[in-house]
Amino acid sequence: MVVDGIKVVDATLRDGGLVNDFYFDDNFVKALYDANIAAGVDYMELGYRADKKQFDPKDFGKWKFTSDEDVWNIIGKKNPNMKLSVMADVGRCDFRNDIGPRKDSPIDIFRVATYIETIPEAIEMINYISSQGYETTCNIMAISKCTDEQIAHALYVLAESPALAVYIVDSYGALYPKQARKLARLYHQILAPAGKEVGMHAHNNQQCAFANTIEAKDMGAKWLDGTAYGMGRGAGNCHLEGLLGYLNGKKYHVDPILQLIEEWMLPMRESGIEWGYNTSYLLTGLTNQHPRTAIAATKKKDHQFTEQFKFLSYQ
Amino acid sequence: MVVDGIKVVDATLRDGGLVNDFYFDDNFVKALYDANIAAGVDYMELGYRADKKQFDPKDFGKWKFTSDEDVWNIIGKKNPNMKLSVMADVGRCDFRNDIGPRKDSPIDIFRVATYIETIPEAIEMINYISSQGYETTCNIMAISKCTDEQIAHALYVLAESPALAVYIVDSYGALYPKQARKLARLYHQILAPAGKEVGMHAHNNQQCAFANTIEAKDMGAKWLDGTAYGMGRGAGNCHLEGLLGYLNGKKYHVDPILQLIEEWMLPMRESGIEWGYNTSYLLTGLTNQHPRTAIAATKKKDHQFTEQFKFLSYQ
Repeated sequence: MVVDGIKVVDATLRDGGLVNDFYFDDNFVKALYDANIAAGVDYMELGYRADKKQFDPKDFGKWKFTSDEDVWNIIGKKNPNMKLSVMADVGRCDFRNDIGPRKDSPIDIFRVATYIETIPEAIEMINYISSQGYETTCNIMAISKCTDEQIAHALYVLAESPALAVYIVDSYGALYPKQARKLARLYHQILAPAGKEVGMHAHNNQQCAFANTIEAKDMGAKWLDGTAYGMGRGAGNCHLEGLLGYLNGKKYHVDPILQLIEEWMLPMRESGIEWGYNTSYLLTGLTNQHPRTAIAATKKKDHQFTEQFKFLSYQ
Repeated sequence: MVVDGIKVVDATLRDGGLVNDFYFDDNFVKALYDANIAAGVDYMELGYRADKKQFDPKDFGKWKFTSDEDVWNIIGKKNPNMKLSVMADVGRCDFRNDIGPRKDSPIDIFRVATYIETIPEAIEMINYISSQGYETTCNIMAISKCTDEQIAHALYVLAESPALAVYIVDSYGALYPKQARKLARLYHQILAPAGKEVGMHAHNNQQCAFANTIEAKDMGAKWLDGTAYGMGRGAGNCHLEGLLGYLNGKKYHVDPILQLIEEWMLPMRESGIEWGYNTSYLLTGLTNQHPRTAIAATKKKDHQFTEQFKFLSYQ
């Protein structure tokens, strides 16, 4: 298994935080951190840096905001074997005030999440954050709703930016493997000449998250996201343990994540925090829609799937 | 979505029966039967025809044996819109005594399951069962353990048999999409000139069951297996609702299966019948092993995944 240049990114806290409003036990965060280092994970994403003027800290755990101080409290000092990531959403992050110079921070990279319509704002953020010394990526959400022309245009613009990589973000879990391959090829064709790389962030609504991730890899994607035990809203994400197992060998090791599942993820699931295959989320993926219908249905335990499908089919 | 020539096969009772020893409520069987017809499913597999001299009927529900009488009791009379299937395992079916002429039977097809080493016995069964008037397929299990040379040899032999199709059976859930494509292409190249078709039966250990099924379809597979809500031992199977959703349109309709999930599958799961993503089964898939380690671990709730992985890695 050739893993040259691959960056495995663990997004458990950040995307898993959507399941539990970012309330994670500090001991879990430390255990995940240690497991990721032992597993050879290249980047660990700790959370969002959301704007506290927009989101009340009383309503969320600390990884919605991911202050440098909270990160230092977990890690003690920097470990050179794994970089740390925070996600910053366009329109939801007061980046000029809340992102200081990298030299004072435990964070190595900010991943800027954007819809395709707000790429100009994303580039403004990427420019600013890069000027503070950080690595950056641009994560284009809801990519399954974009035309090839929109995507190509965005990629040509981003090729001129300081971002190291641009992500295919299948927010709706709508992509099939052949679409993942096609997108990765398109991204790679445009980005590679500019020295930029391709990332894949997949959701599991139609059970294609892992398949789409390894298929995108075969088409040149280098940044591959997963979450421990697939933790993520609804159907969840690409399972980190599946991905590390696939890449297992010289650089990556699945054992530390298997241990983490036994010690932390199974008890978390048993405590009532829910994610995994869910017919309502299957249907939003199938119809290429934002999961809001599934979120609402799951919350009120509405299992009228035929009604949900009818509603979604007319969106 | 082009579905010409596709045969969707529902294997819920047969492969799902491995979860509950084939004890299904008659009302569920009838509901599944009706839902499959309404969904446009081409074949419904009702169970195995196991040899009662080898398997004690006291230990299993009736769909381990699937007598014509039990089928008639469910369906009343034949519906021309869906064919009925039974699986017969090489070495576990007394086919000369237990499979009578098709004209007296509600069954249309017997799918003969075999390991590659017992293809000669499978062909003997296929010849006999075909002589009784039934359609047949040959389902080569544990295909991920076979070499291309073994497979090609088997396919050339089966191309001369009366079997309508030969299946890729990923018993261990070990295949990745590119392997599924490669196998489907190999099968198709050898079988198509003889007028035979390719089938895909996938397991979800590594969450590739659905992806592998639609990827095999793109390489010419026409017979596509699924089970309602993915019911099947351990990680389960390709989700029938995902497959029908993907093919949804003129010929196939996902709604009846969505209704079935609401009315039957969710209550079945809540009653304690377990299947779905499971780390022990992930590891048997990853290491390309029979799931026996995972079956044992799951039974005794052994979550020492690192130990399981170590054991499997030395097999």
